Amino acid sequence: MSELTHLDEQGRTRMVDVGEKAPTHRRAVAAATLVVGEAIARAVREGKTPKGNVFEAARLAGIAAAKRTWELIPLCHQLPLDWVQVDFALEADRIHIRAEAKAFAKTGVEMEALTAATVAGLTLYDMLKALGKGMVLENLGLLEKEGGKSGLWRREESHAG
Amino acid sequence: MSELTHLDEQGRTRMVDVGEKAPTHRRAVAAATLVVGEAIARAVREGKTPKGNVFEAARLAGIAAAKRTWELIPLCHQLPLDWVQVDFALEADRIHIRAEAKAFAKTGVEMEALTAATVAGLTLYDMLKALGKGMVLENLGLLEKEGGKSGLWRREESHAG
Amino acid sequence: MSELTHLDEQGRTRMVDVGEKAPTHRRAVAAATLVVGEAIARAVREGKTPKGNVFEAARLAGIAAAKRTWELIPLCHQLPLDWVQVDFALEADRIHIRAEAKAFAKTGVEMEALTAATVAGLTLYDMLKALGKGMVLENLGLLEKEGGKSGLWRREESHAG
Amino acid sequence: MSELTHLDEQGRTRMVDVGEKAPTHRRAVAAATLVVGEAIARAVREGKTPKGNVFEAARLAGIAAAKRTWELIPLCHQLPLDWVQVDFALEADRIHIRAEAKAFAKTGVEMEALTAATVAGLTLYDMLKALGKGMVLENLGLLEKEGGKSGLWRREESHAG
Amino acid sequence: MSELTHLDEQGRTRMVDVGEKAPTHRRAVAAATLVVGEAIARAVREGKTPKGNVFEAARLAGIAAAKRTWELIPLCHQLPLDWVQVDFALEADRIHIRAEAKAFAKTGVEMEALTAATVAGLTLYDMLKALGKGMVLENLGLLEKEGGKSGLWRREESHAG
Amino acid sequence: MSELTHLDEQGRTRMVDVGEKAPTHRRAVAAATLVVGEAIARAVREGKTPKGNVFEAARLAGIAAAKRTWELIPLCHQLPLDWVQVDFALEADRIHIRAEAKAFAKTGVEMEALTAATVAGLTLYDMLKALGKGMVLENLGLLEKEGGKSGLWRREESHAG
Repeated sequence: MSELTHLDEQGRTRMVDVGEKAPTHRRAVAAATLVVGEAIARAVREGKTPKGNVFEAARLAGIAAAKRTWELIPLCHQLPLDWVQVDFALEADRIHIRAEAKAFAKTGVEMEALTAATVAGLTLYDMLKALGKGMVLENLGLLEKEGGKSGLWRREESHAG
Repeated sequence: MSELTHLDEQGRTRMVDVGEKAPTHRRAVAAATLVVGEAIARAVREGKTPKGNVFEAARLAGIAAAKRTWELIPLCHQLPLDWVQVDFALEADRIHIRAEAKAFAKTGVEMEALTAATVAGLTLYDMLKALGKGMVLENLGLLEKEGGKSGLWRREESHAG
Repeated sequence: MSELTHLDEQGRTRMVDVGEKAPTHRRAVAAATLVVGEAIARAVREGKTPKGNVFEAARLAGIAAAKRTWELIPLCHQLPLDWVQVDFALEADRIHIRAEAKAFAKTGVEMEALTAATVAGLTLYDMLKALGKGMVLENLGLLEKEGGKSGLWRREESHAG
Repeated sequence: MSELTHLDEQGRTRMVDVGEKAPTHRRAVAAATLVVGEAIARAVREGKTPKGNVFEAARLAGIAAAKRTWELIPLCHQLPLDWVQVDFALEADRIHIRAEAKAFAKTGVEMEALTAATVAGLTLYDMLKALGKGMVLENLGLLEKEGGKSGLWRREESHAG
Repeated sequence: MSELTHLDEQGRTRMVDVGEKAPTHRRAVAAATLVVGEAIARAVREGKTPKGNVFEAARLAGIAAAKRTWELIPLCHQLPLDWVQVDFALEADRIHIRAEAKAFAKTGVEMEALTAATVAGLTLYDMLKALGKGMVLENLGLLEKEGGKSGLWRREESHAG
Repeated sequence: MSELTHLDEQGRTRMVDVGEKAPTHRRAVAAATLVVGEAIARAVREGKTPKGNVFEAARLAGIAAAKRTWELIPLCHQLPLDWVQVDFALEADRIHIRAEAKAFAKTGVEMEALTAATVAGLTLYDMLKALGKGMVLENLGLLEKEGGKSGLWRREESHAG
């Protein structure tokens, strides 16, 4: 079929071929902030949330989602993650989310860390939405990335503070 | 086993029982903004993106993810979605994402709309990350929600710019 | 965001909105033929296949896949299937596959029947490929469709023979 | 294809056709006991478990698995669950697991309750296996079933005590 | 975010980091017994089961579930299984289930073998429950485990008999 | 349990044990043709298709399905794909589909390439079925296979033409 003219050549989506790449140790850290307002933050602090322990549910959902990144993001490769962790820090009116992923793989784990942070944030939203629907997830992005040819990358300004 | 003391009663996560609720028409709109910077926005406008058509991939990923919300968010119910749509608007340095979901269901579709917007945003990130890793997803939240007892809800300020 | 010009309006993929449709009884029948050649057909008939009972594996894979059609086909709705069946008929050099699906739903079950027939065919291929890689799946299509506004549809010629 | 002789008729697996059944309120309760021994039970009581809070992880895993029962059990129908709950009771050398599921559906939710109890038990095993691999899950079965034609069913003896 | 106090430190669930571990050949065997009673055992022996061949369905369901262990058990790593097998032995009033899994991996395959045995057992239950709902799964546990630092482990008493 | 007679030995399905195999570079190419008729082919060429850009949706669906082959085909191993590509060529009355998959793995990627081609074809069907239900997928088969002990295999005749 190589002789056929490809009508759809222009702009077609394509997966990166990692066949010639050697696996290296990969690490990525992503973060996001769920702005919940003071009333909801207080309810979280006092454990008065209608669906129970929000942090454990969000953490487990984030870890599970990281393992399924390749199912969610169309052109991601299937990566065998060595480790995923999701942590939270509660401030007066917001919850900071930090997710870290590691793998020995041919391609980076940015999307895995970002997916973990995001789904953890959505789960917090779901667990808290009976208390108020105006919560907003801000500043979801990559903080660090390590491994592969490009070496260490760090976001310059501190967005996660 | 009803006579057993539940060691884990305190704070345990719990699903909302919707057994007594009647289904109604539900609708929800969510939005987010991926801040990509001017150089990447220009590449998108000119179709010079390394993995191909970013909007179609992100749209399809968002729709697919909305249908799988119940797999990602631990306490979400399985909802049969009637419709999901994901749209994009490109500005000088950012891409706005808008996702809408509808269902005839016993519970709202906020999480489905939010999941569609989020996974669309992550897919854009994945399609563009070879051009720069500093992109940040901002202002992910609910814009509108309709159906069920609580009727119509709209976010007051315009976050979606 | 309704005031934004949608850069991607042209040609964008879109799900059919079934919100206003009422569910009706739906039924669809799909068929395909796996041309395996006489030697492989004989091995099947004599139960000398290297991975065991090919029909049970293919049948179960087809049923399981039908239930997951909405995960595989991007714009398909999630349908609660009432019934799926997959049957086989062995001829001298080929295996006929017939799949039927039923649901009480707002949209048809063609894709579910087609998915069942296809994945059943791929599973047969997988179970038999150690005996020869030149097998070809032919004539995969819809035979009948019932329910909804359009009523009964039947393929005119007999493709399944 | 109805005229073809079905080689595989004998013993072939088949899904129950629920097309003519009307949905009713369904409920099922399942239970199991993980025999862990006194040392592990003590570690659980004192919160000294190497992977963290075992009950929240097991509960969420059980709820998530119940929603995916139709993916795991080949001939199960896709049921929209109204509610799933998983509870635990710790005794001197064992953990009792109780799972309850509800749906408004054409078929019962026994498998959903059993799947929730089972996967909760496997998750406990996974969270505790660094402390000893000899744990055994006992007495996994249905306690109650309600709804549909057959009405209320209760297991006679108390296995869950 | 490393400077933030982690509100949720205490008891939080955590995945084991296998980044520094080298893969070795892993093997695990799990077993369980489904007590079905004499009448159901006789129906199985005579092939008079309402949903067809129970062993093939249960075997395939067990194999498929083993491959999805990491989706079901929150803190399990994604393991590329080299082999999974599920076998059955029918006695006068019970069905013994034995599942074996192998992988070349950084962590053991106990959970994969246990998941295969369990889902095989649940599938048997589902295929037979029209004949009686009082069936109970007993003695689900690990029989053997091989590979990794800890070497060979065998359950002392014979629980599977 | 090794002493038990295996009632189900005869014909039971079995996975190939790849534990002793070393990974090699694997490649496979599959193809299929969707016969759509001239009217539908014209609508595709002119971009007048009711659900939008059929090629991008079908391509992404095919890539996503290839990554999930092990979930669909019961006895397939989980393979970490290095690359998947799906291409289309439109003729007067038909659409040719070509899918290629690559992996560094212990077993071949035929099923992954075939699954990509098939699900791409089913997605085209779904996107076009409002224009006519008589479309038929023909000539789905393997074109090439490379890697592993058996080396290069090529289908003799040109079926994809």
